[in-house]
Amino acid sequence: VIPVGQHLPPHAGNSDSTEQLLHSATPTEEMNGSGNLMDFLDEPFPDVGTYEDFHTIDWLREKSRDTDRHRKITSKSKESIWEFIKSLLDAWSGWVVMLLIGLLSGTLAGVIDLAVDWMTDLKEGICLSALWYSHEQCCWTSNETTFDDRDKCPEWLKWAELMTGHSEGAGAYLLNYFLYILWALFFSFLAVSLVRVFAPYACGSGIPEIKTILSGFIIRGYLGKWTLLIKTVTLVLAVSSGLSLGKEGPLVHVACCCGNLFCSLFSKYSKNEGKRREVLSAAAAAGVSVAFGAPIGGVLFSLEEVSYYFPLKTLWRSFFAALVAAFTLRSINPFGNNRLVLFYVEYHTPWYMAELVPFILLGVFGGLWGTLFIRANIAWCRRRKTTQLGKYPVLEVIVVTGITAILAYPNPYTRRSTSELISELFNDCGALESSQLCDYYNNPNMTRPVDDIPDRPAGPGVYTALWQLALALIFKIVITIFTFGMKIPSGLFIPSMAVGAIAGRIVGIAVEQMAYHHHDWIIFKNWCRPGADCVTPGLYAMVGAAACLGGVTRMTVSLVVIMFELTGGLEYIVPLMAAAVTSKWVADAFGKEGIYEAHIQLNGYPYLDQDEFTHRTLATDVMRPRRSEPPLAVLTQDSTTVEDVETLIKDTDYNGFPVVVSRESERLIGFVQRRDLTLAIKNARQKQDGVVSNSVVYFTEDAPQLAPNNPQPLKLRRILNLSPFTVTDHTPMETVVDIFRKLGLRQCLVTRSGRLLGIITKKDVLRHMAQMMNQDPESIMFN
Amino acid sequence: VIPVGQHLPPHAGNSDSTEQLLHSATPTEEMNGSGNLMDFLDEPFPDVGTYEDFHTIDWLREKSRDTDRHRKITSKSKESIWEFIKSLLDAWSGWVVMLLIGLLSGTLAGVIDLAVDWMTDLKEGICLSALWYSHEQCCWTSNETTFDDRDKCPEWLKWAELMTGHSEGAGAYLLNYFLYILWALFFSFLAVSLVRVFAPYACGSGIPEIKTILSGFIIRGYLGKWTLLIKTVTLVLAVSSGLSLGKEGPLVHVACCCGNLFCSLFSKYSKNEGKRREVLSAAAAAGVSVAFGAPIGGVLFSLEEVSYYFPLKTLWRSFFAALVAAFTLRSINPFGNNRLVLFYVEYHTPWYMAELVPFILLGVFGGLWGTLFIRANIAWCRRRKTTQLGKYPVLEVIVVTGITAILAYPNPYTRRSTSELISELFNDCGALESSQLCDYYNNPNMTRPVDDIPDRPAGPGVYTALWQLALALIFKIVITIFTFGMKIPSGLFIPSMAVGAIAGRIVGIAVEQMAYHHHDWIIFKNWCRPGADCVTPGLYAMVGAAACLGGVTRMTVSLVVIMFELTGGLEYIVPLMAAAVTSKWVADAFGKEGIYEAHIQLNGYPYLDQDEFTHRTLATDVMRPRRSEPPLAVLTQDSTTVEDVETLIKDTDYNGFPVVVSRESERLIGFVQRRDLTLAIKNARQKQDGVVSNSVVYFTEDAPQLAPNNPQPLKLRRILNLSPFTVTDHTPMETVVDIFRKLGLRQCLVTRSGRLLGIITKKDVLRHMAQMMNQDPESIMFN
Repeated sequence: VIPVGQHLPPHAGNSDSTEQLLHSATPTEEMNGSGNLMDFLDEPFPDVGTYEDFHTIDWLREKSRDTDRHRKITSKSKESIWEFIKSLLDAWSGWVVMLLIGLLSGTLAGVIDLAVDWMTDLKEGICLSALWYSHEQCCWTSNETTFDDRDKCPEWLKWAELMTGHSEGAGAYLLNYFLYILWALFFSFLAVSLVRVFAPYACGSGIPEIKTILSGFIIRGYLGKWTLLIKTVTLVLAVSSGLSLGKEGPLVHVACCCGNLFCSLFSKYSKNEGKRREVLSAAAAAGVSVAFGAPIGGVLFSLEEVSYYFPLKTLWRSFFAALVAAFTLRSINPFGNNRLVLFYVEYHTPWYMAELVPFILLGVFGGLWGTLFIRANIAWCRRRKTTQLGKYPVLEVIVVTGITAILAYPNPYTRRSTSELISELFNDCGALESSQLCDYYNNPNMTRPVDDIPDRPAGPGVYTALWQLALALIFKIVITIFTFGMKIPSGLFIPSMAVGAIAGRIVGIAVEQMAYHHHDWIIFKNWCRPGADCVTPGLYAMVGAAACLGGVTRMTVSLVVIMFELTGGLEYIVPLMAAAVTSKWVADAFGKEGIYEAHIQLNGYPYLDQDEFTHRTLATDVMRPRRSEPPLAVLTQDSTTVEDVETLIKDTDYNGFPVVVSRESERLIGFVQRRDLTLAIKNARQKQDGVVSNSVVYFTEDAPQLAPNNPQPLKLRRILNLSPFTVTDHTPMETVVDIFRKLGLRQCLVTRSGRLLGIITKKDVLRHMAQMMNQDPESIMFN
Repeated sequence: VIPVGQHLPPHAGNSDSTEQLLHSATPTEEMNGSGNLMDFLDEPFPDVGTYEDFHTIDWLREKSRDTDRHRKITSKSKESIWEFIKSLLDAWSGWVVMLLIGLLSGTLAGVIDLAVDWMTDLKEGICLSALWYSHEQCCWTSNETTFDDRDKCPEWLKWAELMTGHSEGAGAYLLNYFLYILWALFFSFLAVSLVRVFAPYACGSGIPEIKTILSGFIIRGYLGKWTLLIKTVTLVLAVSSGLSLGKEGPLVHVACCCGNLFCSLFSKYSKNEGKRREVLSAAAAAGVSVAFGAPIGGVLFSLEEVSYYFPLKTLWRSFFAALVAAFTLRSINPFGNNRLVLFYVEYHTPWYMAELVPFILLGVFGGLWGTLFIRANIAWCRRRKTTQLGKYPVLEVIVVTGITAILAYPNPYTRRSTSELISELFNDCGALESSQLCDYYNNPNMTRPVDDIPDRPAGPGVYTALWQLALALIFKIVITIFTFGMKIPSGLFIPSMAVGAIAGRIVGIAVEQMAYHHHDWIIFKNWCRPGADCVTPGLYAMVGAAACLGGVTRMTVSLVVIMFELTGGLEYIVPLMAAAVTSKWVADAFGKEGIYEAHIQLNGYPYLDQDEFTHRTLATDVMRPRRSEPPLAVLTQDSTTVEDVETLIKDTDYNGFPVVVSRESERLIGFVQRRDLTLAIKNARQKQDGVVSNSVVYFTEDAPQLAPNNPQPLKLRRILNLSPFTVTDHTPMETVVDIFRKLGLRQCLVTRSGRLLGIITKKDVLRHMAQMMNQDPESIMFN
């Protein structure tokens, strides 16, 4: 069903006015002459230039509309000072939007961090001195906290202590355990219910959909205010519930919602889907920037992973937005350490060539994990889509939360929040570190500066930590597969990194102990003399995290740059790079697509990815109509009646029709959109006297010569796109795909020797590509 | 003049073989049937797919040739293990090339650094213990060097001391002065002579030409082995001569030469101009990476400033090449400090909001300097091109070197090499610093850690330094304008940064002393209490350097990232960004183009830049033939004789001809390249019996029906490109420019209602854009 009375695209008007430039010396004259027929075209309609839901935008048209708008403003700016100021404002609006996006997304990220901190701790206990304090804040402000017992203070009470007065014993443990589960269930139930009721689009990570939207697809409401609000709230709830998910992906979605919100302030962006996407690309960069505190990494992530059309101007603005967001977040200072980055680490020792072997092994592990995760997760999500399972999203969330909470509580490494876990795993064991992972036997004779502690034998705490970490690893691997894709906001950066960090730390400690106990082995002899600080297990954790994240997302440069920004030194870029390259190669050997592409395909979004199309087909193999199909529905330039057109519109559901000189010659003169045609005829029938069913519709410049008793003809040249895109039937599909991708076309007409043969739409291209890859071509959702 | 007998492009073969797929169920059958006519097409010719010098490549064709090659290798790889290994090698060759580029350009950069170090010092004196030691190395290895007098040791002798035995006094000074000038003249004379005689392309920075080459232009020998060798040698000479130039731009050229060299090892790259350019983009990244020790900045520089077509695959490989290059350089360790970066700095104090005011002022200064430099330098270069001046390049270099040396020697800040100067200006004054710039009055009561020295009053050394720096600033500003563009290798990163660093340091010291003496002023009150270390003049120098570099090159993201990599912390990114943004805005207000675009335009290279084209012209306004011109030279598909074709080739100089059904219908069926046509006819006349002057040339699938007594016709369908690119005459030029830019076309045919109207070549597009900007359209050099 086509909504009527909405708009005629300015593109048509544009073609016509430029045509006047050509064919008449005095444009105004002709404009007046033909103006009475189609005056409504000059007036802006409320829905001018909008697209329907689940349609693809026409990038070329959006671009040319923006140029028109810009030309208009530039020429007006010379008229008066007010217009000049308006043109300046217009030129600056891009920067203003970036500033606003940076401020809002930084603020939201800060608020989310604070709320998650508080609510995560709420599962275990409460701060009596101030109910809104998290555990750390509570003990930080307490006077009775000592440095050694940083996380114990009288103001912070576990639930059991508060309710029964006892803090020790099996009863207290069980009560705490029970309440932990209860809180987790409550948070996740609240989250899934809010999503279900208020904003179904708020679920998932959002990155696959944002990729699709940025490639030119319209999904109304996906970036709306309501989604922004609900996603922010439910993200806090979901993360706090202790599920194995992260906030990084959803933060990108939140930042894009902010971007969309601020677009609506400026008609430059709100009325142009192409310009809007430039803003959204920058917003995605701001999102990653606040997720990790890595502005450069964020920009590269947007460039590499998310964006489709990324001109250099956008690069610079993205960088600005990302920086503003990062510094806004830092001024909120949610981590309380004045640091920009999520996981700030500082290592004191260099790495050695021999260590590349374990680093590359971690890369292999990351690649295998990526493959396993993608396959298992997609299989599970497909099952969810196709079976009864998908009908009970709330129940699913409750069950997974329950299992997660029951299994997570007993293990100290899964009980805490995943980002705290990663943070601890990344850390180098300093002299003042009190955690179990740093329980080494110290040599009392050794007095060294704090930051240069030699390798030491591991104490019992480390061994306990090791098997707890091993259990945590298995748990995280399994549960993350089932968690990602549920109907709550869920990112997978953090769970992936956690898997890698655990594996890396285990490997790191193993290498460290090997080096300590066997420093006479050949491999250690050269670089690890006794008493030297040669192995940093924290670095292994970081390399493992990079490898696993790379295996799942197939990020490359942005991954290394994000990790580089976390460590702040080029020193460790080679290990990170080695692991990232290995992990990508291993994972690519099993399947080319990352998790986001896999989800795009699972959901059948019309996303034309950047992979090379290497098959030897031609345009003629792809174009419609096929040999067996009825001929192409076309209009002729001066021999179709209004009734014919109406019948054509009723009988077909094409989005537009080519216009030819005559059915015999099949020579193409233009392309007319279905929407425009419907609207124009409706309007003419209402407003224009003499237009009846057998009026002739003509697209030529001058009315055809008709007998005097014929009804008044209807001139529709203004809605005709006179520059439709054509290729010949012999054009290789490789070139056609390239053209569709680079120019962002919706459709393309196919000709041979100047005769119109058929049409290729984006849908046809995608279907053909899917066929060539032996995928299910029917799963592509769109018009 | 068209060289004959060279090649037929495989594209034609491609079109034909794909056509066979369509029109015949058994392709081999038809191939055999028509094979005897055009067998030579299947054989690879030595010059297959090459372009002539100063021609533009066809990106689409290069891409489709690469896909063909890839398809062939993939299908062959299933035949035998050997073929499979070959296909693996082919797939890995990209990484191998990157590795080799990284290794070679890193090595060359290291060698250049060492040689420059030694030869710069050679101007002042010599190391007696080992002649090949530079001053620093000489005194470093000496036993009699003390820490305070690091640069004095008995092994290092100034020339006067060596020759006369006296190291003090006016005579010694004058002798040293004289020898300094003599050495400088000798070095620069050698450099300019080598360039003149062996490799004229080795002059200048090379970045404008590399931009043009990467956009698809062919300049034979520009990246050749000879250029590589001579540029490396003369770069050392030019930098050592003390001229106001840097090695950064030329290093990009050197790295690109390395890239081109290694391309020739693999047919994948050597035979495909498109693939070759991917390698060159990565090589440019490696070049900047070794120039500054900033791999990420290098990749972004390549993306932002140099490259034209930069797919994500290239991004990742560039990053790899940049890292390999950086680490190769570090293992050579030319700076002797184990640091990767050229100017390693570490600041110990944060910056304060109030400091943004001087930072933004430095940005304004940078923008003004950029504008002044570009205008003055372009005016001077234009004068060199158009007047007698250009005829004496050797003399010009000698004169400028003489003036530089005479003026530079008396001032200690201009006598030393520019990068040493920048390095000193960037440095924070630690407690152990002995330089004149760090001559502050120390408070003897204050015992503080080395890295936290409070603001102190400036001593006489600082004031001396200040006016010497002021003189150096003026000198650098003036001399750089005349130096850049001479016929020796010359980069302008370092001189620009030097100008900014001097200005920044002066401002920094001023602010520091103001804050020290007036810390009760409102602006200082909040952040600068007495005894605190609040102003870091070194940071001002860095901000100034970024601003000036930004003003000249208009780099944005890459500039900030390079600077960020130098400092290694996000802490100072806001000052850098503020200065870079301001400088770009100020400079853009006076003129949109950076120095590289200005030089591209000055030299008339056919470079289609990324700026938006916003004029309202249509394809019909640009296409040839114009109204007054004779009609388009076309071929008909089956009614042109061999003689007609030969006459057409002789009478015109077009690069190709459209083929139409007939002159009456003007319906386009394809496009044929002039080279292919010449070769095919020549070949047919020699090898094919019965082809005479009045043989009919036909481009249809079947031979035309001819009377029996007619001579044997000549079938040329195989050389016909059946998918020429077309637009309608109503297409806005904005769209046409977009298509040319994004698809990398050489030409595009213009049709109306299926009839061929005209042709638009890249030259026409550039000429039209120049006209619209009121530039001289005749300066565009190319075919």
